[in-house]
Amino acid sequence: MILGEGYVHGGDIYSRRITLDFSANVNPLGTPEAVKEAIRASAERIDIYPDPYCAPLRERLAELNGVEAGEILCGNGAAELIYQFAAALKPENALLPVPSFADYEAALTAAGCSPRYYPLLRSEGFAVTERILKAIDDDTDLLMLCSPNNPTGRVIKRPLLLRILERCWETGTWLFLDECFLELTDEEKAFSLVSSLRPGDRVILLRAFTKAYGMAGARLGYAISRQPGMLSAMCRGVQAWNVSTPAQAAGLAALDCPAWPERARRLIRAEKQYLTEELMALGISVLPGDANYLMLSGVPGLCDALLAKGILIRDCRNYRGLGEGDCRIAVRAHEENLRLIAAIREVWHG
Amino acid sequence: MILGEGYVHGGDIYSRRITLDFSANVNPLGTPEAVKEAIRASAERIDIYPDPYCAPLRERLAELNGVEAGEILCGNGAAELIYQFAAALKPENALLPVPSFADYEAALTAAGCSPRYYPLLRSEGFAVTERILKAIDDDTDLLMLCSPNNPTGRVIKRPLLLRILERCWETGTWLFLDECFLELTDEEKAFSLVSSLRPGDRVILLRAFTKAYGMAGARLGYAISRQPGMLSAMCRGVQAWNVSTPAQAAGLAALDCPAWPERARRLIRAEKQYLTEELMALGISVLPGDANYLMLSGVPGLCDALLAKGILIRDCRNYRGLGEGDCRIAVRAHEENLRLIAAIREVWHG
Repeated sequence: MILGEGYVHGGDIYSRRITLDFSANVNPLGTPEAVKEAIRASAERIDIYPDPYCAPLRERLAELNGVEAGEILCGNGAAELIYQFAAALKPENALLPVPSFADYEAALTAAGCSPRYYPLLRSEGFAVTERILKAIDDDTDLLMLCSPNNPTGRVIKRPLLLRILERCWETGTWLFLDECFLELTDEEKAFSLVSSLRPGDRVILLRAFTKAYGMAGARLGYAISRQPGMLSAMCRGVQAWNVSTPAQAAGLAALDCPAWPERARRLIRAEKQYLTEELMALGISVLPGDANYLMLSGVPGLCDALLAKGILIRDCRNYRGLGEGDCRIAVRAHEENLRLIAAIREVWHG
Repeated sequence: MILGEGYVHGGDIYSRRITLDFSANVNPLGTPEAVKEAIRASAERIDIYPDPYCAPLRERLAELNGVEAGEILCGNGAAELIYQFAAALKPENALLPVPSFADYEAALTAAGCSPRYYPLLRSEGFAVTERILKAIDDDTDLLMLCSPNNPTGRVIKRPLLLRILERCWETGTWLFLDECFLELTDEEKAFSLVSSLRPGDRVILLRAFTKAYGMAGARLGYAISRQPGMLSAMCRGVQAWNVSTPAQAAGLAALDCPAWPERARRLIRAEKQYLTEELMALGISVLPGDANYLMLSGVPGLCDALLAKGILIRDCRNYRGLGEGDCRIAVRAHEENLRLIAAIREVWHG
């Protein structure tokens, strides 16, 4: 909940009249029926406190990821875990590539840390490149990465990610890697660091159910770390019952639907191609991204023009390192994408 | 979610075989059907992010409490707000009556504060008395009170509460007052400070839906403060979507059931009398409390003996200021209370 300062994210369909939301990056297929049913069924035991250990869920997640249950920590959405981690680590020197998700900086600021920005370059398509290895030094307490990155959609490729991991090991740097959009990323490019983690590695991986299973309203994410001491430290700043009963039930049901993200990836691949071709035909610059969303550039006024038609896309002006005319659109189902393109065609004349 | 250190609260029915839970203090009537229905209905829109402003809920709560919507902050359960408040205030000198709810101290510790304990005396029935006025001085940044207190069930009476408010005003002390159990407290004793708050008062009141509406699994609480700057500061350390869609829907539905806590109070009054008489007849000392739970003393071994029969009551040994033989039982519906008394009669021989 936000008071005072303005809200900085996508998905705010509550304070405006929105008929079509392209600002939130969730699975275009929506929510599996089994997940909805789990939430409905949880109403019957809602007077009971949730399991503070999220035990069955953590066991399943541990098994799926090839780690121990004690190396998994569940949170009230992945976003909560970002704040918990920053508060537990309290880094003095944090390296933050920009543009990226605003809550990394917000969480660092709340933990008393002014991050050192590492500019991703428009001329490099905002990709993380080998350049970053030189920016990590012995003073760097923490590096915060997101792959695929938000809002650019760029993934960090396997060989580079492994070199970053090695460099962080040399310098004693904590590596925070947000993999929340990985499950909806083109399969051949979706490389998770989880299989490369060694016990004791100062790495924390962030995962969400939000995007892959269409569960943004339920709030469920998790962190993986093979330094369980960090996960314990993260717990100390948080109540015992932070993950609700509907969220735990929904998460367990989602894990029984492994085909859901897969189906979505096929849809996203086709629709991303459709959107890209249509937008480029309209003379709009589209960043070649690997995620379930696309970043557009050079379209000043587009967000406001679409908003006037009840269509919300993500204005990226408030991302550090981006500006007027940068925006992000989610890849939705075909009928919605048709409507978006039709609306853009109406309002956008280059 | 808890990793590493032991869980310190009641209600842990997950890691043990429990057939009857008297350790969690929720409404013995359970959850209103309308609240369950709201949770079930929320499953249909679970792929959408929750309203970060909790706008309709805060408006209703503001109206009910005679304050502005900007003076209300919703949280992922009241427990989250305790941590948020301690992190935002970062007091140096906090006065903490003990025994009380463990999360006050945990939240202060997480915020880097070692509280000054103010011992409530067994000889005074653990009541907060005028003595406390002398303990509040110009150095006191914060006083954390709970009325009715957990686990003692004692309320702070209106005249004393108003004197404490005045004393805090004189000394520039923030007053945190947890009123989470107030709605299930004997009506004539349930005095809320909300109607006495003046704009600018350094006071924060904590409220929950958990107890009064049987919603512990959904996670919804709120804070009231007439210093909205504090609520904004509390937001800065937390993600935007901390209150889930099912929780917001459940809260709105609960507010349409004002008779639910009232019905529970009538039941609790009768059942508390029944439990008190039966326990005293068994030679067990019962603290005269005003809440929907009772504190018992001088019963070493009772918790373990009941646990062996699948009945969980709250062992209060880990409350600061309490010890072996102190425990707490919730007041439940009659049939459950009968079973509890029968079990105690079997295992307890003074």
